[in-house]
Amino acid sequence: MILRTAMLPLCFGKQQAFLLFVLQIVIMILMATLTTYGPEASIIPHKSHTESNDIRSKKDPLRIYPNVHVMIWIGFGFLMTFLRRYGQSAIGLTFLVGAILVQVALLCDGVVHIKENGEALLSLQGLLSADIAVAAPLISMGALLGKTTYMQLVFMGIIELIVYTANKYIGEHLLMVVDAGDSMFVHAFGAYFGLAVSFVFGVREKPKEHHLEGPSYQSDIFAMIGTVFLWLFWPSFNSASLEGDNQQRAIINTLLSISASCVMAFATSAIVSKDNKFNMVHIQNSTLAGGVAIGTAAGMMCRPIGALAIGSLAGVLSVVGYKFLTPLIQKHLRIHDTCGVHNLHGMPGVLAGLFGALMAGIASEESYYYSLYAIFPARAPSSEAKLAEIRDDYNRISAGFDRTAGEQAAYQLLALLVTLGIAIVSGLITGLILRMTMFGSITEDQKFDDAVHWELEEEAHEQDTSKHVEGSTRANDQLPMGHM
Amino acid sequence: MILRTAMLPLCFGKQQAFLLFVLQIVIMILMATLTTYGPEASIIPHKSHTESNDIRSKKDPLRIYPNVHVMIWIGFGFLMTFLRRYGQSAIGLTFLVGAILVQVALLCDGVVHIKENGEALLSLQGLLSADIAVAAPLISMGALLGKTTYMQLVFMGIIELIVYTANKYIGEHLLMVVDAGDSMFVHAFGAYFGLAVSFVFGVREKPKEHHLEGPSYQSDIFAMIGTVFLWLFWPSFNSASLEGDNQQRAIINTLLSISASCVMAFATSAIVSKDNKFNMVHIQNSTLAGGVAIGTAAGMMCRPIGALAIGSLAGVLSVVGYKFLTPLIQKHLRIHDTCGVHNLHGMPGVLAGLFGALMAGIASEESYYYSLYAIFPARAPSSEAKLAEIRDDYNRISAGFDRTAGEQAAYQLLALLVTLGIAIVSGLITGLILRMTMFGSITEDQKFDDAVHWELEEEAHEQDTSKHVEGSTRANDQLPMGHM
Amino acid sequence: MILRTAMLPLCFGKQQAFLLFVLQIVIMILMATLTTYGPEASIIPHKSHTESNDIRSKKDPLRIYPNVHVMIWIGFGFLMTFLRRYGQSAIGLTFLVGAILVQVALLCDGVVHIKENGEALLSLQGLLSADIAVAAPLISMGALLGKTTYMQLVFMGIIELIVYTANKYIGEHLLMVVDAGDSMFVHAFGAYFGLAVSFVFGVREKPKEHHLEGPSYQSDIFAMIGTVFLWLFWPSFNSASLEGDNQQRAIINTLLSISASCVMAFATSAIVSKDNKFNMVHIQNSTLAGGVAIGTAAGMMCRPIGALAIGSLAGVLSVVGYKFLTPLIQKHLRIHDTCGVHNLHGMPGVLAGLFGALMAGIASEESYYYSLYAIFPARAPSSEAKLAEIRDDYNRISAGFDRTAGEQAAYQLLALLVTLGIAIVSGLITGLILRMTMFGSITEDQKFDDAVHWELEEEAHEQDTSKHVEGSTRANDQLPMGHM
Repeated sequence: MILRTAMLPLCFGKQQAFLLFVLQIVIMILMATLTTYGPEASIIPHKSHTESNDIRSKKDPLRIYPNVHVMIWIGFGFLMTFLRRYGQSAIGLTFLVGAILVQVALLCDGVVHIKENGEALLSLQGLLSADIAVAAPLISMGALLGKTTYMQLVFMGIIELIVYTANKYIGEHLLMVVDAGDSMFVHAFGAYFGLAVSFVFGVREKPKEHHLEGPSYQSDIFAMIGTVFLWLFWPSFNSASLEGDNQQRAIINTLLSISASCVMAFATSAIVSKDNKFNMVHIQNSTLAGGVAIGTAAGMMCRPIGALAIGSLAGVLSVVGYKFLTPLIQKHLRIHDTCGVHNLHGMPGVLAGLFGALMAGIASEESYYYSLYAIFPARAPSSEAKLAEIRDDYNRISAGFDRTAGEQAAYQLLALLVTLGIAIVSGLITGLILRMTMFGSITEDQKFDDAVHWELEEEAHEQDTSKHVEGSTRANDQLPMGHM
Repeated sequence: MILRTAMLPLCFGKQQAFLLFVLQIVIMILMATLTTYGPEASIIPHKSHTESNDIRSKKDPLRIYPNVHVMIWIGFGFLMTFLRRYGQSAIGLTFLVGAILVQVALLCDGVVHIKENGEALLSLQGLLSADIAVAAPLISMGALLGKTTYMQLVFMGIIELIVYTANKYIGEHLLMVVDAGDSMFVHAFGAYFGLAVSFVFGVREKPKEHHLEGPSYQSDIFAMIGTVFLWLFWPSFNSASLEGDNQQRAIINTLLSISASCVMAFATSAIVSKDNKFNMVHIQNSTLAGGVAIGTAAGMMCRPIGALAIGSLAGVLSVVGYKFLTPLIQKHLRIHDTCGVHNLHGMPGVLAGLFGALMAGIASEESYYYSLYAIFPARAPSSEAKLAEIRDDYNRISAGFDRTAGEQAAYQLLALLVTLGIAIVSGLITGLILRMTMFGSITEDQKFDDAVHWELEEEAHEQDTSKHVEGSTRANDQLPMGHM
Repeated sequence: MILRTAMLPLCFGKQQAFLLFVLQIVIMILMATLTTYGPEASIIPHKSHTESNDIRSKKDPLRIYPNVHVMIWIGFGFLMTFLRRYGQSAIGLTFLVGAILVQVALLCDGVVHIKENGEALLSLQGLLSADIAVAAPLISMGALLGKTTYMQLVFMGIIELIVYTANKYIGEHLLMVVDAGDSMFVHAFGAYFGLAVSFVFGVREKPKEHHLEGPSYQSDIFAMIGTVFLWLFWPSFNSASLEGDNQQRAIINTLLSISASCVMAFATSAIVSKDNKFNMVHIQNSTLAGGVAIGTAAGMMCRPIGALAIGSLAGVLSVVGYKFLTPLIQKHLRIHDTCGVHNLHGMPGVLAGLFGALMAGIASEESYYYSLYAIFPARAPSSEAKLAEIRDDYNRISAGFDRTAGEQAAYQLLALLVTLGIAIVSGLITGLILRMTMFGSITEDQKFDDAVHWELEEEAHEQDTSKHVEGSTRANDQLPMGHM
């Protein structure tokens, strides 16, 4: 113990902490130089308070934002507390990484939407987008959980958010594809980025050979706090960027899909597990796969059956992935995936991209009426004559590129491939960067152990108080006579 | 151990898991045949996006829906984690059962409101109603917690939701009674249905004689997550079906009632418990009784004192029920009630029905003005002449049946009796159905034990890793030197 | 054990429980005499349902209220579960105290805003204000956690809410200062009031010398539920009393400030802790200091950099407080502060007051345009001529007192001093009152121990069941073979 504690400062020295300071100061300088309040949060002369308030409340992000906010910090944070001795790090590092990256995401988003006068505008909608962006590095963190220093996670997240912003810009603005719930841009991207980093970090051959890589009875229940909050608010996540009937449809589709994946994950878990019991890993994760799988097409006219079918498929696929694919990937590709993000975010994200392309390929003016051109802007006519006719009935349609359904589907697939390519390549490079000594590293022995990051209570007092140690053991074994 | 594990497949075989698959597929087929998106979630030609959005946002279910959603899965789920060795099942089976039943509830609700063209419409309001419906079987589950297979819970829930829908239809549309917070239709119904099933399941004579039927120190804290979230969002639950001043009144009345029941439950717990300490069972449950007791009359003009009084009474009644009534019911009626749903949902639900009848009996045009006829539609005049006069001031009143206050009160009582009768009879029948071998069963020995449903980590590795077992023991006893 | 249990009734007798009863009945009588539904929750003749609903929904408290509701009971409640053997009391007593005090706060708020006809009106906005008021005594409770009877907490809260209401009235209506997030009126007030009470209660010289005053591995994770929910919804808390762009700005400023304080708290924790690891106490508390520090100025034009800077400063200051100041205060001032509320609410609250004064001192018509007079009503011109001109552009401005920026800043500082003075003096007096025997007291031996308040399961059965005791031990050590 004493030996190990003595060795820790080598990789977690004061310079890591100072690096955190410097980082926050750099963020502050960038915020000061680049950002200002957006119009909804600014004082605008010559407009009465009441009026402006009315104008601004058309699309109220406060209806959705708190739910997404809970998903990111409580959802992802507690989902990762399943390890028996890494719960404090799971929730604590999600907290730290989330707090840094939400600022970085605001900067990235601001820079992309920068105005001519060089100002990046902060608004509630921007805060919501930043929360969604932060999900990507937290997903990558799931692949690496227990195997990194906090500084590695922080820098991975910063690089990832920059690449994420570029990839999303390519997808949304250049390829003009639809990904309402960000299943491609956040989930697939985050998963494959994280797996690529994990590949660079290397792994032993057998899965779960580390004695701390497993849950305890209590830690599995803590993780369910994360699972259930994620499950509950996934409809909010997938509908966050939409409005009107589009948003309501996304909520309904996501609820159906994630309910179906929950049931199918339980069923498949019982079939593939020993004695036909349920496995907590499957229940904590695969039940959510339907939320990912419907993401891209959440706002489309999938019909209830479409949403249920894709959710069911995702639930089955995800459990099968945990049971059979993850060990193979670890053994043959030497990629270790602590939380199994490949099964919750990777494969379901790809599935979402494929399903989105399919739905885009069958979308017609017949079923979508003119809102086809609001949902798929690239399909809008380029000729002003046709546009004028549409605008009689349905305003707010911009000129598009006359894409056919097939072309839109092809672009959707292209965006999926581009996302996977960029995620993997940038993940590999990021992995190499993170192995630089300045970020520190975790030895095999230190993996999955909170003692590496946290000044645990008993540790601090261990020498002076044999009495205290006894006290705390007793306190834990639930027998009040113990502390007479 | 080996012996018991070997015996489990007898009752939890692969066929249970396949049944789950089949069930989800049947749901899918019914959804595909019967349902479609409601108008708020559909694309409607010839209406601009902005306009339609405006029209639809009059009554925005997104203000209340997320809160109720949290109550059902986090609230009920964690409330039932209080058993020391059944926490994973409590939260896990709530999750599974909830995910199936929310789909079943959507179907039931859809079928009742089916259109002439044979379409059942899905909408946010429908999703909210489905969540509320799911509360009924989860309450019944509380009476049976730890004593059933998951398949028994699932089928109980399906039957219960069908009967629930019929009973609610009778109450709301035939008897035309008011039950804003569904205290009769959900709480009393769910409790007595569950108790009837539990009666059929049988019980030994002495309470809590099973060595696993009790909390641990940690499990009692997990349960408080459920309690507090239920307590916080109960005002949302009781006001979910209301709007305008009616909704605000329901929120205020519920907050007052549930606050009073919380204080009174603490006080009564201290009086009836050993050494005048508090008892966690009372605090986890009876503090919520005021939310149930005000439910029926939540939107009525109870005045603050009315809400506080009924909440106080419910708090006292509920604790007294736990302390004195539950053991008697177990001993003499041979009904075992794991969570004590009779004290949290049963008696307070009946109390709510009685209080609702009382409030209906004193409701007059003087205190309610014309909104009397919006709140109690059956009291509206049947003559068009009188109606026209009312509509000058207050539109949206339909022709009623000229009921007097006394008649309305009598109908309220009738609905309570009908609900109790239907719940008990259908519960008894359901209990008999659930004892069929196809659903499996739990032996006395397997009760309240997560090992029956879950592939627990240590179990899986127990033979090959004496080292792992040691690791996990140490990991749990909080002494870092332990894992030197 | 038997000896201690036998002694407990001396201080927790039946009379405490009866006092609770009486208290709730007194509250009921006051509610019955004083309060009625406000206009938004009342039936108003001659106004159609739809119309009135529209009018009322201008500022919808339901967008913010549920978030603040979660902060108070889940946030504060779980934050205080960090002690290894006081988790049930932390969450349970927060629940009890909150339920009583929310009613008391409604009465206090009602009495202050009482109408000429003697009616105090209940409304959603009032419920929201009551939640915020309850935060003050819960903060004070943090200083006293584990050292009081529940009756002491209840009476402390009642006295504190009365003084709080008076102090807030002085600040808002007499001194006309701005404190959007109530950092002075709730946080600084609650902290220094609690510390004053704690001073009267006395303390031994060395910190943490009680063997139960420390966390366990699990309790630290439970506490993080509180921390993260508080962190997530702090922007709602600080913007609860605002509207329009003012509200959006408060949300953005708070998010920036609390994110910066989170990062800085982690960095500072690593620098000041042994081996440069993180300390859970700092992470659970100091990460939130930015929410407090921006509170007063949350709606002002702080610019992003201002919010980030004040948050960063608060994060550093709070950790430094925990590490160096708290032990000194305990040793030299003999004030024991269980949760360290001085570091989370006290110093950051004072910082908020100073920052608010600074921002008020540089506020000009140039940067705020005419909304300067909405945000700082005392700065509005007193002459009707000038007002008429302003109202052309910006209605809803009332006549003010022609205060200059400097004068407003001075008044802000004065309000801070008044708040501190009133908090400390009233806290000292309250401490003396609470030492009266009628409230009971906790001996040194009983401190930080749930067994004092709770009828723990094992205690009740301890004699008759050596078998049960074994069962529960095994149930807890996570080895299923244990309960063969």
